[in-house]
Amino acid sequence: MTAAHAGTASAPIPVLAVVGVGLIGGSFAAALRRAGRVGRVLGVGRNGPSLERARELGLIDEAAGPAEAAARADLIMLAAPVGTFGAILAEMRAHLKPGAIITDAGSTKAQVVDVARAALADRIGCFVPGHPIAGAEKVGPDAADADLYTGRNVILTPLPENQPADVAGVRAAWEACGAHVREMDAATHDQVLASVSHMPHFLAAVYVAQVARSADCAQRLAVAGTGFRDFTRIAAGSAEMWRDIFLSNRTAMMAELEQLRAVLDQAERALDMADGAALEQLLEEAARCRRDWKAGH
Amino acid sequence: MTAAHAGTASAPIPVLAVVGVGLIGGSFAAALRRAGRVGRVLGVGRNGPSLERARELGLIDEAAGPAEAAARADLIMLAAPVGTFGAILAEMRAHLKPGAIITDAGSTKAQVVDVARAALADRIGCFVPGHPIAGAEKVGPDAADADLYTGRNVILTPLPENQPADVAGVRAAWEACGAHVREMDAATHDQVLASVSHMPHFLAAVYVAQVARSADCAQRLAVAGTGFRDFTRIAAGSAEMWRDIFLSNRTAMMAELEQLRAVLDQAERALDMADGAALEQLLEEAARCRRDWKAGH
Repeated sequence: MTAAHAGTASAPIPVLAVVGVGLIGGSFAAALRRAGRVGRVLGVGRNGPSLERARELGLIDEAAGPAEAAARADLIMLAAPVGTFGAILAEMRAHLKPGAIITDAGSTKAQVVDVARAALADRIGCFVPGHPIAGAEKVGPDAADADLYTGRNVILTPLPENQPADVAGVRAAWEACGAHVREMDAATHDQVLASVSHMPHFLAAVYVAQVARSADCAQRLAVAGTGFRDFTRIAAGSAEMWRDIFLSNRTAMMAELEQLRAVLDQAERALDMADGAALEQLLEEAARCRRDWKAGH
Repeated sequence: MTAAHAGTASAPIPVLAVVGVGLIGGSFAAALRRAGRVGRVLGVGRNGPSLERARELGLIDEAAGPAEAAARADLIMLAAPVGTFGAILAEMRAHLKPGAIITDAGSTKAQVVDVARAALADRIGCFVPGHPIAGAEKVGPDAADADLYTGRNVILTPLPENQPADVAGVRAAWEACGAHVREMDAATHDQVLASVSHMPHFLAAVYVAQVARSADCAQRLAVAGTGFRDFTRIAAGSAEMWRDIFLSNRTAMMAELEQLRAVLDQAERALDMADGAALEQLLEEAARCRRDWKAGH
């Protein structure tokens, strides 16, 4: 272990277990290490080469199975695909160390909470759901970055069964990573994220698919510029991951789509009728909102 | 005149006139100067302080009215709002120097050509329509940048009345600015640009307006991340400018919107029915198209 990785059993988190050692989990481990918050880091995952690479990179100290990680870890971060949470939590449940806290990095929260309740049953109180609003097109341990969460928002959606001290512990870990932590209930989280994260991905994908299906697609793409580039960047993301996010947040997404269609109808009507005043008013409304947001970031 | 601005009457373009000395026109002048392609640069505009600032910055050598610019310039670049082209061209027509070439930087071409034909009448042959696919949120002479067009696409939509040598002259000027020049007819240009430029702006504005109208807008914006940032960047653009672009390209935009709604309907149906396979297929189609495009840029 190098000096940069030095950690002791007296660190706030003597043993951290990260399930999924890619961009999200690896960056969490790296940031906590750098902040001197962790002693030993266990990596849990089904992908042998990824675990080995994470060890080489110093993101984790050793690999462990779910049961062993549960028995040894003080904090467990679930950063694997959401679809795997149920099986992992069920395997961990009987082995959990007393006082252990589990948190996660899943993009939607209501469904994750349902899955966690089913898997953890009477141990649900140790699960503090979370969602870091950070990410990138990059994946895998090599993409891990101790700075990924600096200045980013992390949302916690605590459960009634959580101990305040456990919620505070998860908050402190994220703050040590440089993140801003907010709390809200799971339903609010899912509606808000449907709006500002999932809808942009959905619309960008719909738009790019429409361009891709045009007969003169190659000519279109040949002259596409920086507006196209930025508007569509997120459409390059993992289809599998976004399929799961959309499906797990379907109700909130459908509600957003209904609202979006109302504005789209209005804008298209203004265009169709060459109603310049109505069109400009809508564009100005959007431009003002976007400029104000930018000013705040 | 400083050494950096040195130009002679033997330059390929002895006198350049730029109508509108902001980002687009100012950058064109700056790039041609740097390439040693221009002798003297005249600035035409209704905004006195902008012209004076452009002169201070060395973008232009002197201000001139439309008639004087027409009488002296070998190449005239129209980089003012498209809505002003008709009046400017009508004022220039009777004064045009023999052999003068006029080009423009308007975002749509069919309507500009109609306006130019009406204003220039039998002199229409000297007008070579163009469109540099470059721009930014910044405006004004201070935003001008000799590198703005480096590596960017410029589309020319030559008219049957153009002399091949005049089209070649405009092409050479843009290539001296570092741009890639393509030629297509005006209708094709407008349809292609409706797709890869105007639709992203339209959709980004509709989306941001929907967010702006939500009751919990502030909470949404507070947790919006980098996906939101890039997807909506273009929505901050000038409402007045985009209103004019949308209206001048209304027919092509309406055709694109019809195609987009077909894909939106399909995606929403897949989501509503929780059809993961259909959803993933559409997302994968978009992701592949976007990744391939990125690879080519």
